[in-house]
Amino acid sequence: MSEYRAPVRDMQFVIDELAGLERIAGLPGFDEVSSDLVAAVLDEASQLASEIIAPTNRLGDERGAQLRDGQVTVPVEFRQAYEQFTAGGWPGLAMSPEFGGQGLPAVVGVAVEEMLQSANLAWSLCPLLTQGAIHALESHGTPELKQRFLAPMISGKWTGTMNLTEPQAGSDLSLLRCQAVPANGAYHITGQKIFITWGDHDMTPNIIHLVLARLPDAASGVKGLSLFLVPKYLVDAEGKQGQRNGVTTASLEHKLGIHASPTCVLDFNGAEGYLVGAESAGLACMFTMMNSARLSVGLQGVAIAERAYQRAVAFAMDRKQGNTANSRDTVAIIAHPDVRRMLMTMKAETEAMRAVAYVALAHLDIAARAAEKTVRDASQARVDLLTPIVKGWSTETAQVLTSLGIQVHGGMGYVEETGAAQYLRDARILTIYEGTTGIQANDLIGRKMLRDGGKSLSALLDDIHDTVTALREVGGELAVLATELQAALEQTAGALEWLLANSRADADIPGAVAYHFLMLLGTLTGGWQLGQAALAAQARLERGAADGDYCQAKVHTARFYAEQILPRVAAHARSIRSGSAATMSLTPEQFFRD
Amino acid sequence: MSEYRAPVRDMQFVIDELAGLERIAGLPGFDEVSSDLVAAVLDEASQLASEIIAPTNRLGDERGAQLRDGQVTVPVEFRQAYEQFTAGGWPGLAMSPEFGGQGLPAVVGVAVEEMLQSANLAWSLCPLLTQGAIHALESHGTPELKQRFLAPMISGKWTGTMNLTEPQAGSDLSLLRCQAVPANGAYHITGQKIFITWGDHDMTPNIIHLVLARLPDAASGVKGLSLFLVPKYLVDAEGKQGQRNGVTTASLEHKLGIHASPTCVLDFNGAEGYLVGAESAGLACMFTMMNSARLSVGLQGVAIAERAYQRAVAFAMDRKQGNTANSRDTVAIIAHPDVRRMLMTMKAETEAMRAVAYVALAHLDIAARAAEKTVRDASQARVDLLTPIVKGWSTETAQVLTSLGIQVHGGMGYVEETGAAQYLRDARILTIYEGTTGIQANDLIGRKMLRDGGKSLSALLDDIHDTVTALREVGGELAVLATELQAALEQTAGALEWLLANSRADADIPGAVAYHFLMLLGTLTGGWQLGQAALAAQARLERGAADGDYCQAKVHTARFYAEQILPRVAAHARSIRSGSAATMSLTPEQFFRD
Repeated sequence: MSEYRAPVRDMQFVIDELAGLERIAGLPGFDEVSSDLVAAVLDEASQLASEIIAPTNRLGDERGAQLRDGQVTVPVEFRQAYEQFTAGGWPGLAMSPEFGGQGLPAVVGVAVEEMLQSANLAWSLCPLLTQGAIHALESHGTPELKQRFLAPMISGKWTGTMNLTEPQAGSDLSLLRCQAVPANGAYHITGQKIFITWGDHDMTPNIIHLVLARLPDAASGVKGLSLFLVPKYLVDAEGKQGQRNGVTTASLEHKLGIHASPTCVLDFNGAEGYLVGAESAGLACMFTMMNSARLSVGLQGVAIAERAYQRAVAFAMDRKQGNTANSRDTVAIIAHPDVRRMLMTMKAETEAMRAVAYVALAHLDIAARAAEKTVRDASQARVDLLTPIVKGWSTETAQVLTSLGIQVHGGMGYVEETGAAQYLRDARILTIYEGTTGIQANDLIGRKMLRDGGKSLSALLDDIHDTVTALREVGGELAVLATELQAALEQTAGALEWLLANSRADADIPGAVAYHFLMLLGTLTGGWQLGQAALAAQARLERGAADGDYCQAKVHTARFYAEQILPRVAAHARSIRSGSAATMSLTPEQFFRD
Repeated sequence: MSEYRAPVRDMQFVIDELAGLERIAGLPGFDEVSSDLVAAVLDEASQLASEIIAPTNRLGDERGAQLRDGQVTVPVEFRQAYEQFTAGGWPGLAMSPEFGGQGLPAVVGVAVEEMLQSANLAWSLCPLLTQGAIHALESHGTPELKQRFLAPMISGKWTGTMNLTEPQAGSDLSLLRCQAVPANGAYHITGQKIFITWGDHDMTPNIIHLVLARLPDAASGVKGLSLFLVPKYLVDAEGKQGQRNGVTTASLEHKLGIHASPTCVLDFNGAEGYLVGAESAGLACMFTMMNSARLSVGLQGVAIAERAYQRAVAFAMDRKQGNTANSRDTVAIIAHPDVRRMLMTMKAETEAMRAVAYVALAHLDIAARAAEKTVRDASQARVDLLTPIVKGWSTETAQVLTSLGIQVHGGMGYVEETGAAQYLRDARILTIYEGTTGIQANDLIGRKMLRDGGKSLSALLDDIHDTVTALREVGGELAVLATELQAALEQTAGALEWLLANSRADADIPGAVAYHFLMLLGTLTGGWQLGQAALAAQARLERGAADGDYCQAKVHTARFYAEQILPRVAAHARSIRSGSAATMSLTPEQFFRD
């Protein structure tokens, strides 16, 4: 039975070397941030994750969430873990000190978040959604609303939710019907919301819902949406919890995975709510919440892949089957080349995804705090570009990696008690919620590539080119990385050029090639960051650093990625250049053939 | 609620045009086989699958198999469906008439088998395993054993199982310990077998186990294995069922999917058994059973992908979300290019896999019956080459396609009641049982490519080259197929050349690149068969055939595959040429990083 052990060494390496902690620590407000402080934080969080939260993972899967007499309950062990989480001040780690947060950089918070997600994906969704709600409230709430609700959310005393989806409106928010009517200086919210993650539970005494709804006479479509804060229990001006508000849980979904994360149908029956942001500015407010959540969900892809990897490695070291070309005795299966291929794929892609996600978060810190506007803008542009990539590519890749995790186990992987199957089941939601992969891909190609004529992407490609140059200069094993990365870069540039030249002639092209661009850019940026990692590791090796074994493994891992993963870039690029004709060629009826 | 409708039109097209029914019908013993006969068989089987078996799929998933008082039970609806299956004479469709079979070609039987698998994968495993046991018994059993057991197995009165795996011996059969001791002209079998599919159930009064075990003083390793027939209830010389034999069900596995297929731990306690084949020739006998089962499991990949596809299409036609570049109104999501990409990927890959599987089965018919030995040998070599491809590639692809099936549904796909998730859960075993993908890949590269110096593969590549030439001659939309197929062919030839030149210098190379060859050759042969399909469809279109709509769709589908799927061949080829160095570079300890 292998339990979770946080990959602290890799996290710290990524934060120090790839996300550039030194630069982050130089930003205003981060005076006390240092590599040692980060090490201490990661060490403490690692204990919380491994010892307190990870043991709740399997029991949560088995017992699930329950709805009885209108109240949702989760396993009592979840509440106990949550209490330790809040007692340690973890919810506010990277939150504003103004309302009780600890004000650490986002790039440090992200490592802690990854640990929680690895430990128990279902459980970690509760803080994840709360964090999104906090960001929306911080950015758009009135001082009075913040005063009343932010501190208890940042402390973890209350949790938060995002209420977007309705039965007829999933990816298409323009179809939302939920109504908000002004009443007594507040609003009465009425309508049904579905797929509300942690929409009700018994871990905290109150829950703060952020709800998209329409005011009377609001415009149709997304322009008519406003955002409202609707507490489960009303809260008076002094912050005292009062009577139950008009929101009830109609039912829970019976899902493939994340069984212990209650996915609720919520009925709002004239529930009292308060406007967040301006009237009919709901979409913008929602995006504040959503962009935060998208990065977090991308990180969930990293986290579940990491946990699946750890279990697979432990099994492969233990299970003895067959001999190899080099051994006549029965060997642990980790000695078999094809098992190696699976484990190296899991390791390399997980580390690549981690690096890209953390780098995106570092740019979030820079965008929020750098002194110069041009620096802030450049980092914001990079975050905007990377957000759909982190969300879409990391979660798609997590599907493949958690499936490989089962495969390494052979028949045992298919037996639920082994635990490997849970990771696949839990991971399967990641490409769907907070915007499907298709939504991410369309965001990437539309808002992040075509809108600026490829400028933001070209800046990224320039950075990758610098890495190629540096890899080539160092040479040795790193020359292989330079060759493969250069080839991938040329393919990408060609695909981008083709897109810019052709996207206007055929309105179906962006949508038809968007997924390929998403996966191409994820694969490429992953290779880029592992190239950067190899450079940093090589430098450490040359100065005889103490973590030589880790650094050597990092160089080899980067090479594996370059040789075994990066070639996919060319396949995506070739498919992109074929455009939309074949994709759009059938009539709907031609999809049937009986 | 979309139920299963057999893709009869596609099946018949593949049998007629790709598997070459005319040629099959010309083989000795198939005098009455004709396209019309096939149509009648498919039509009748389609009703059985859609109306009788498909409705048991979801309830089987929900209720599962149960073990009580030593007896396994499955839902009563399963037994009712099984009774209709046997009453219609379906189990013996492609079996020898000598023992009551109908003697139809394997390539017809395979279409019926696919329907049953699509209708209910868990249920279909029972006939699948029985078929493997029948083949082993037919090929290796004594006349007396055949007399006593074959007819009731071919009629479906009794079912069969394969007993290979033990706790310490999964992929590595050399580690098997189960013992067989001669006694009273028979043998007493003792030991524990695990992962025995349909190892016990209440659909039939008796179950015939084929069990690998060791005789006293047998050699160690696989050379010391013998195969034994062990009935659940003893059967006398007249075929009358007698007392219970010494085999009991110790437990059932709690699995990710195929819940209603009982996966048993069987304890053999001096159970009476009869030798099948010669002493210590168990491995060869087992492979007769296994090769049949491997093609069938590959077909399960096709079948589950087809069912997932049908559900996804039905949902995409029904669900309205968003507008497109070409429409201001809310549209059915099938109009969105990214949804099209997913559905076209499912359609194209499923049809490609079906074609390759049926072609393999057609070669099985030819190998068994052609008048000339050179023809038989060539077809047998083709079957041998295609078997690991059909098994490995189709089942790996089924993972991706059933996952896409969920994705098309968005959030609804994650809710179990929708049904899409069951296909993913059911499919997940396919890359594991009857030899994992790693085992298939090693079989392909070792026994089917390196052993004959690439001869058998080169013959396949020559055939593909002929298809390229034909596509180029027709031109038009088919010229795109020629270009992409030619590019893939060159990449493959280069990878094969590289392998033959380098595999001896580094013993790890075959194992490290085997998976890539498996997926490369699956992708390539799929493209080849869709190229052949496009040629046939184009010819039908030109002579104004009645199924013009279907043929047009087939040409477009082949083009989609060429543009969107075939480019992966180059990625696999590039990874192959990187060899094993990076894959094998880490020490086991370097896989940890905490």
